[in-house]
Amino acid sequence: MFSNRRSDDVAAPRAGRPRSETARRAILDAAADLALAETCVPTIDAVAARAGVSRTTIYKWWPSSAAVLAEALLDRFHESIEFDDALPVRQALTGQVDALVRLLRQTPAGALLRQLLAAAASDERVARALLAQWMDPRRESAAHHVARGVAQGDLRADVDVELVVDALFAPVYHRLVWGHAPLDADLATRVCDLVWPGIAATEP
Amino acid sequence: MFSNRRSDDVAAPRAGRPRSETARRAILDAAADLALAETCVPTIDAVAARAGVSRTTIYKWWPSSAAVLAEALLDRFHESIEFDDALPVRQALTGQVDALVRLLRQTPAGALLRQLLAAAASDERVARALLAQWMDPRRESAAHHVARGVAQGDLRADVDVELVVDALFAPVYHRLVWGHAPLDADLATRVCDLVWPGIAATEP
Repeated sequence: MFSNRRSDDVAAPRAGRPRSETARRAILDAAADLALAETCVPTIDAVAARAGVSRTTIYKWWPSSAAVLAEALLDRFHESIEFDDALPVRQALTGQVDALVRLLRQTPAGALLRQLLAAAASDERVARALLAQWMDPRRESAAHHVARGVAQGDLRADVDVELVVDALFAPVYHRLVWGHAPLDADLATRVCDLVWPGIAATEP
Repeated sequence: MFSNRRSDDVAAPRAGRPRSETARRAILDAAADLALAETCVPTIDAVAARAGVSRTTIYKWWPSSAAVLAEALLDRFHESIEFDDALPVRQALTGQVDALVRLLRQTPAGALLRQLLAAAASDERVARALLAQWMDPRRESAAHHVARGVAQGDLRADVDVELVVDALFAPVYHRLVWGHAPLDADLATRVCDLVWPGIAATEP
């Protein structure tokens, strides 16, 4: 549903689309492979070498290696925000929170996100890339299901969609960033159980 | 109520307590003053010079300038977690979330926390100091009021205290760290309104 959105973030080249799509694909794969193998933000040179492209080609589309990596991670883990509208809203939202928890528990994505957030604290371009390439698409997907819940009468008509998305996902990111409590396997279910009474439509 | 706790985190010197207390006080004040004036983690040398102590004196008690700053910030803003047991539980918890929001809106504390978190991503000692000196005391204070609410029958007996504290405070830190949405002046009230139905005891 959101899979067409990402390529719109980058100006499409006027000609040679197939070849540049191949290059973009190779760059994203190289960045994700290198980062996940070594749990650190790869250099532009390393990504260029692995993808078989020039540094100039990468800088044509991304301002920094952190920006490449943010998009590469979203791309690599995109299925974690793909939940069908046929699912009940609560199941879709719990599933999306759970997919994030599993991503952070089972892959180096959590450690990489911490490094990208650390870079974002002192580099506004990284902060913007991280929002645009990682957080915004994930939030949009969750907000879509919250809005669907309101439209279907499952959720209160007056819910603050942005705040509901925060309430569902913030505890997971909070534990990742501060490390004060574990990312338990059942964390998503417990968070959704806690939040649900505050957003569910009351019976008429 | 928690004000006696902090000094226990550091081994009390066997003799000369008054003089070392004066030095500790001067170091914490120097670290907070420098950090808040310049919105960056001060160097050990700068803290030592301003406090009129040697580097050795600082390293006797803290492993790094980030650790000094974490404790200095907690110390400087300690009133933001001091809520009286005479207050109704919901008012005490909302007040504590609101005090955090105001701290992040109105002082450089938020920018400093982002820098400390960035340092923590690559330095486990900073991560531990930040938890011990900033987050743990704040969470303990909130957990105290949650437990009080359970004891008084205001909150469900089966609440997960740690998760409730996450649910109340994580959205605030989440917006600070990612910057995807503003730290609105009424954020604390909205978060507490959203969380409350999930934790309030149902009428018998």
